[in-house]
Amino acid sequence: MNGLILKIDCPDQHGIVAKIASYVADYSGNLVELSQFTDDQLGKFLARVQIDTTNLSVDVEDFISGFETLGKSLSASWHFRRQPYKMRTALMVTKTDHCLNEILWRTSLGEMPIEITSVIGNRDSCRKIAEQANIPFHLIDMDGDKKEDGFRKINEIIKEEKVELTVLARFMQILPDWFCKEHSGKIINIHHSFLPAFIGANPYRQAYERGVKLIGATCHYVTSDLDAGPIIEQKVQRVQHFHTPKDLMRLGRDCERDALARGIRYHVHDRTIISENRAIVFPD
Amino acid sequence: MNGLILKIDCPDQHGIVAKIASYVADYSGNLVELSQFTDDQLGKFLARVQIDTTNLSVDVEDFISGFETLGKSLSASWHFRRQPYKMRTALMVTKTDHCLNEILWRTSLGEMPIEITSVIGNRDSCRKIAEQANIPFHLIDMDGDKKEDGFRKINEIIKEEKVELTVLARFMQILPDWFCKEHSGKIINIHHSFLPAFIGANPYRQAYERGVKLIGATCHYVTSDLDAGPIIEQKVQRVQHFHTPKDLMRLGRDCERDALARGIRYHVHDRTIISENRAIVFPD
Amino acid sequence: MNGLILKIDCPDQHGIVAKIASYVADYSGNLVELSQFTDDQLGKFLARVQIDTTNLSVDVEDFISGFETLGKSLSASWHFRRQPYKMRTALMVTKTDHCLNEILWRTSLGEMPIEITSVIGNRDSCRKIAEQANIPFHLIDMDGDKKEDGFRKINEIIKEEKVELTVLARFMQILPDWFCKEHSGKIINIHHSFLPAFIGANPYRQAYERGVKLIGATCHYVTSDLDAGPIIEQKVQRVQHFHTPKDLMRLGRDCERDALARGIRYHVHDRTIISENRAIVFPD
Amino acid sequence: MNGLILKIDCPDQHGIVAKIASYVADYSGNLVELSQFTDDQLGKFLARVQIDTTNLSVDVEDFISGFETLGKSLSASWHFRRQPYKMRTALMVTKTDHCLNEILWRTSLGEMPIEITSVIGNRDSCRKIAEQANIPFHLIDMDGDKKEDGFRKINEIIKEEKVELTVLARFMQILPDWFCKEHSGKIINIHHSFLPAFIGANPYRQAYERGVKLIGATCHYVTSDLDAGPIIEQKVQRVQHFHTPKDLMRLGRDCERDALARGIRYHVHDRTIISENRAIVFPD
Repeated sequence: MNGLILKIDCPDQHGIVAKIASYVADYSGNLVELSQFTDDQLGKFLARVQIDTTNLSVDVEDFISGFETLGKSLSASWHFRRQPYKMRTALMVTKTDHCLNEILWRTSLGEMPIEITSVIGNRDSCRKIAEQANIPFHLIDMDGDKKEDGFRKINEIIKEEKVELTVLARFMQILPDWFCKEHSGKIINIHHSFLPAFIGANPYRQAYERGVKLIGATCHYVTSDLDAGPIIEQKVQRVQHFHTPKDLMRLGRDCERDALARGIRYHVHDRTIISENRAIVFPD
Repeated sequence: MNGLILKIDCPDQHGIVAKIASYVADYSGNLVELSQFTDDQLGKFLARVQIDTTNLSVDVEDFISGFETLGKSLSASWHFRRQPYKMRTALMVTKTDHCLNEILWRTSLGEMPIEITSVIGNRDSCRKIAEQANIPFHLIDMDGDKKEDGFRKINEIIKEEKVELTVLARFMQILPDWFCKEHSGKIINIHHSFLPAFIGANPYRQAYERGVKLIGATCHYVTSDLDAGPIIEQKVQRVQHFHTPKDLMRLGRDCERDALARGIRYHVHDRTIISENRAIVFPD
Repeated sequence: MNGLILKIDCPDQHGIVAKIASYVADYSGNLVELSQFTDDQLGKFLARVQIDTTNLSVDVEDFISGFETLGKSLSASWHFRRQPYKMRTALMVTKTDHCLNEILWRTSLGEMPIEITSVIGNRDSCRKIAEQANIPFHLIDMDGDKKEDGFRKINEIIKEEKVELTVLARFMQILPDWFCKEHSGKIINIHHSFLPAFIGANPYRQAYERGVKLIGATCHYVTSDLDAGPIIEQKVQRVQHFHTPKDLMRLGRDCERDALARGIRYHVHDRTIISENRAIVFPD
Repeated sequence: MNGLILKIDCPDQHGIVAKIASYVADYSGNLVELSQFTDDQLGKFLARVQIDTTNLSVDVEDFISGFETLGKSLSASWHFRRQPYKMRTALMVTKTDHCLNEILWRTSLGEMPIEITSVIGNRDSCRKIAEQANIPFHLIDMDGDKKEDGFRKINEIIKEEKVELTVLARFMQILPDWFCKEHSGKIINIHHSFLPAFIGANPYRQAYERGVKLIGATCHYVTSDLDAGPIIEQKVQRVQHFHTPKDLMRLGRDCERDALARGIRYHVHDRTIISENRAIVFPD
């Protein structure tokens, strides 16, 4: 379908839906799907509008630029995305490949409209998988004092390859502040725990010692506040006392694959809006 | 909040959302929540609109009656409900009381905006519970050839008590055709199985014999086609080989309570629209 | 069924199961169910054995006392419970009644083999519910400096009523250290959060602000380390951005009722063994 | 770990656990895990025993053969499996590859102790995936009247390659009776529906039309009674009205991958015992 997705975020006020829907109707757009959320606590209106542009009476470009008058009058931030669309996406990895595999497989199936520009690893372990899928692999050394330099290189790659979304698919390095800020809202991480989490190095060991009955994973946007960015998706799984930390890791992998795949899918379909420290998600 | 809920169902056509939202805005209604679904297969547009009427520039009655021109021009069926609202609800039971208890408890907590007009039983077992909650209890004999007569009496009670919703809270009699038709879309049942189901008398025995790993319950609207009405909610629960049919029944009760409570809640908040044999549900 | 449940906990060693099972068989007990867990990390063997004593060739008392030789030779801790059995249980509450209601209802249905000795509240809110169920209600003032005194009174009640299990069914006071220690392994709490948790006063508000996608509840044994006792059961539920903190509280109640009911059930059926800071649970 | 897994199935009788555990202890085996189920309805005792043979006082072969006297005295069927063990497994496919991919990935990760002997397809679609994983691919033409012949060829392949387990990983042909019988208990299928199911060709279309709120998949042993073999594992997933049949298929794939992977894992770890039409599963 030829179409547009509009994401909009503005102070709550009188008649917003009427104004937006009328703008669409006035130029013969067909409003296919409207998802809206009024955040009473913040006094904000947030919406995602999917528009079929097949019968549009004006050029799509003119439709988009003409929205500016309305958008400004609402004091809104907004964004149009033309469809069909494939988001240019870089995947960052370290050693483990289950999340990488999951994304590759779902992409090949057409489940996720992304174009994977490259796989970036600070270890060489995932090179073969990337190459079998005909995707460039960049090995970036980050050991010891090469970390800062490594992130600068990654930043260059991201710019050169015109990357719009960076996915940390079990990338085990903490991102520097400047990197998080520069790509704010454009980095998705999968955290190997149900957040809020066991703090520290080995959540599965801690989960075992505490005897939790459910373990999970959390897909979230990355902010400079470690593991505290807006949550996009979470998944849990039942466990029992006989599951060793290694079993928990195995079961956790399934949570991670699922939560990350859903999180990416929501993002690339423009189904998320970041609002303060929350991600508003209109799931499909 | 003083408000209105509009449910509307019409052939899909150009500019519907714009027209509805503009109508609301024109009279200073505040569109608090809009949930919409375009059914491509049926060519239908379905929506639920929640309107804050605090600042309405006209009388609510005039706002409602004035909508007729627009509604007709869209060839729509629609319905307005004024809020706050308590739906007059009759509960029908036989022997088991877990669903009855659940509804009473949630109602007392304010989770379900219903006013229970009476409990109607074809056995006396639930009388005490009803009376402790200060709700009239009607015992209707339905044994043998008194069944048809019993349903006529129930029909009268429903009319006298101005019942808007009848909930079959583990009521173990099959409803006659005329009764289903007369109260179409206004009877909710809880089926003690995940539908489509093991056909026949004892689903838990069958589930045991087949060794299923999940059992469930289904909350649905009643139609004259037994157990085949539009599904509102379903709930499942994991089981294992050592669960006897009696255990399955115990675990099934939890599914039933949960699915029924959610189903009723969706209905009384006007979050369901019946469309052919499906229930469109905009969950909260 | 006339029977015995044996719980046993000993250092892992050669031939334990053979010895226990042979002891049972030697006196014509019928080993109906054996659940066992070897904790490699602690070098411990833990088991629950259900024995049908119908055809026992000796007196049950003699069977129990005769086990001592074997138990000691294994350096074990063990416990026999005769069945049928109803555990004397006190319920402690503050204002909210959903957990209380759940326990009363399930007990009346025979789902939980407990005898509720009394309901103890530091507010009067739940008195009516207790009295309708013909259960004594004790109001214990705990405000301000009366707290320590209150817990002494509760301790006396527990002794007088020969209480074996104390359930904190949304009891909102922190228990003093001496109380936790005196009743170690005999107090079950329901925590209104998925543990590890948002720390502090209002987990639902925090969950809202963080935008979590799942909320939960945790049933655990009480230790003097607040909210860090062995976890018996956990339950989660999916939520979305539009759920207000009040909605989260409503949905959380369902998790609490379910996790607490299961936790109690496991305990009174002797399906839990506390091992360090974990609860080994052999679920049914 | 060097070990043995014993699966045993016999009429319920006095002292079975004592006899088995004593046999193990007598020859210095270490009983690591014992899972047992007494089926009261069938009067049967079923168990899985995991034995660490590191300190066995006799040859493993002698330990196994010596069990015969005890086994016969119990009128049992039993089976020993030596560990570590990789089960020789053939994967049968048609066009779709998600289940195939899942099994390959989990196998490569060591999650499933199988050795994939070959991939057998009645279409060529999965050849590339098999070959990238260095697994032989057999294309077997089954169109029209070549079906019977095709199954004979598959039967030969299975014999030649000494296959112990055949997995129908979305294989879209109905197996002939003789084939089901010859490999009874050794064929696992993934059914793209929660069983009992919508009967007929397109369960996702039917699920859509009925408006179900949960869809699922069922992993089961294949018997000549189509889709009615013993269920090993089931998985469901929540869906909503806006999910098209195509969406349901996408979400169903996730259920299928998960249920099949777990089902195979249980089987190859000897965690299943078929008992009449049920699969007793001792999950890990």
